[in-house]
Amino acid sequence: MAAGEFDLIATYFTHRYPTRGDVDTGVGDDGAVLQVPANSELVVVTDTLVEGVHFDHYTPARAIGHKAVAVNLSDLAAMGAEPAWISLALTLPTFDDEWLTGFANGLREICDYYQCQLIGGDTTRGPLTITVTAHGFVPTGKALRRSGAKPGDWIYVSGALGDAGLALAGMQQRQKITPDYQRRLNERLFFPAPRVALGQSLRGIASSAIDVSDGLLADLRHILTASQVGARIDVDELPLSLALTESLSEADAFRYALTSGEDFELLFTVPEAQRGVFDTVIAHAAQKPVCIGRVTNDAGAIQLLYAGEPWSFPADAAYGFDHFQQPTAESET
Amino acid sequence: MAAGEFDLIATYFTHRYPTRGDVDTGVGDDGAVLQVPANSELVVVTDTLVEGVHFDHYTPARAIGHKAVAVNLSDLAAMGAEPAWISLALTLPTFDDEWLTGFANGLREICDYYQCQLIGGDTTRGPLTITVTAHGFVPTGKALRRSGAKPGDWIYVSGALGDAGLALAGMQQRQKITPDYQRRLNERLFFPAPRVALGQSLRGIASSAIDVSDGLLADLRHILTASQVGARIDVDELPLSLALTESLSEADAFRYALTSGEDFELLFTVPEAQRGVFDTVIAHAAQKPVCIGRVTNDAGAIQLLYAGEPWSFPADAAYGFDHFQQPTAESET
Repeated sequence: MAAGEFDLIATYFTHRYPTRGDVDTGVGDDGAVLQVPANSELVVVTDTLVEGVHFDHYTPARAIGHKAVAVNLSDLAAMGAEPAWISLALTLPTFDDEWLTGFANGLREICDYYQCQLIGGDTTRGPLTITVTAHGFVPTGKALRRSGAKPGDWIYVSGALGDAGLALAGMQQRQKITPDYQRRLNERLFFPAPRVALGQSLRGIASSAIDVSDGLLADLRHILTASQVGARIDVDELPLSLALTESLSEADAFRYALTSGEDFELLFTVPEAQRGVFDTVIAHAAQKPVCIGRVTNDAGAIQLLYAGEPWSFPADAAYGFDHFQQPTAESET
Repeated sequence: MAAGEFDLIATYFTHRYPTRGDVDTGVGDDGAVLQVPANSELVVVTDTLVEGVHFDHYTPARAIGHKAVAVNLSDLAAMGAEPAWISLALTLPTFDDEWLTGFANGLREICDYYQCQLIGGDTTRGPLTITVTAHGFVPTGKALRRSGAKPGDWIYVSGALGDAGLALAGMQQRQKITPDYQRRLNERLFFPAPRVALGQSLRGIASSAIDVSDGLLADLRHILTASQVGARIDVDELPLSLALTESLSEADAFRYALTSGEDFELLFTVPEAQRGVFDTVIAHAAQKPVCIGRVTNDAGAIQLLYAGEPWSFPADAAYGFDHFQQPTAESET
């Protein structure tokens, strides 16, 4: 082919990308041919970003490229997996060299950092939609799951919550934020850092794990449902950034930290018996996970405490982000 | 979660689906945890279907579900791989129970037939777009590729060409077709049969392979480019359906067979030395591949013959289907 779809992949998505020894055939055939290491299981995750839903005209193309990979690596991290390969399905309304260059740079930079190889994909014409499928490895039997939390386990989160949600609120003029704080918050919304190293270090230590994509309470509920347990959360222990605490009242800060999504921190539980090992593992981590509560045997219930006293959650708050939670005006049936 | 995205997957895409012993964790966690058999390589393929590009309002939802998987299994077949698992990224403009039921049925039926397990995915709100990533296995070193064709190898195609393209032309009123033929042709457009068993039987026999998605000539060119060879095609040997030959002039029949896409037959090359083994392997096949030409050493050149004489291809014909081949009116830059 002299031009078109095939050259688009060759032009933007193969040059200066990392290559790995376990890829026998990558981009350019009907499929990729790959080697999974012995004594390992394969972990596969998929996430889609849609224009107008997950990003908008104000989102830099480089950020979209970064985020399309980051959200998937965050899922791999939540499984304790080591990232290896990604496939990219890219639907584009137009051919736009500047956008494609920015997007490809964002994608390449994060692939490079985590030594992930782009092994194939599909480019089609249509409304801007990006689906990445990421592949990683875990030693057989060592994957982290949502289902292993037990009453008495300690609940941890890997870093500050609410920043991405507040960044979005600021850009949409729903919240007043100083330009300096807006810049810092945007960095978290546009270039989330998947907790890849932490996820792998939690193998054999954490009893359950998930990444915070829909909001702390919504994602905690997934763990509680899968594990058939409850939780007590100390809201005054929630890790919050200066940009967040300086921009909001305390109650609003808790509301963002508890309910806004897209922070891509890891939420996980550690049994009392593993706490010593865990402390040793994270002793030299640049960013230490914070203990925010404990698993209870009151299945499905989340108890919020402030300084040890029950804390009442604002009545109008949304519990996480769900694309299909409510019927909308455009619904046909 | 009481409702929404999570229940949508649970409601439509887990009930009565096949399950496999090599899936440790499927739908319902951050990722799937999977076992690849020893001495096998993993083959990964991805294809996207976009409304208005790959299907339209006249396409039954069940056909879209079938096709989203079939086009991917066809890529696995072209690699000689045995299908195992699929991920589904589904972007939907509205919640439409009737459409979702039809789509999920089509998806389930083909997964069931090939014992493929749905291992995960993502549902988002947005313009109707479906990306499937399919995973399969080949014995290590046995994957079929585009790059192994050698001068003197025989060129085969697995079945009739042009039917899907003609079906589309008929529905779009670009070609006059009797209702009975239209029905038969639609079956090929809407419910293509990936040549999964044939692909696996070609391991160690075929020197190259590809599936015909963009049109015979376009896909043949991929083999010629990857293998640095040329080809001679006997147009009078092209397998054609009765519906096609009865609906078109001979020249138009060849034009559809050579240039229209979406038939998802396998196109492959067999060395002279493997022809005896190949004939034995296909002796009892329900549908026999047809020899349509031979590989030449005239790199990149395709020579078309009719009864052994050069055949001139209509000058206005399009060489396959490429979403980004030409700048369009809506191009921004």
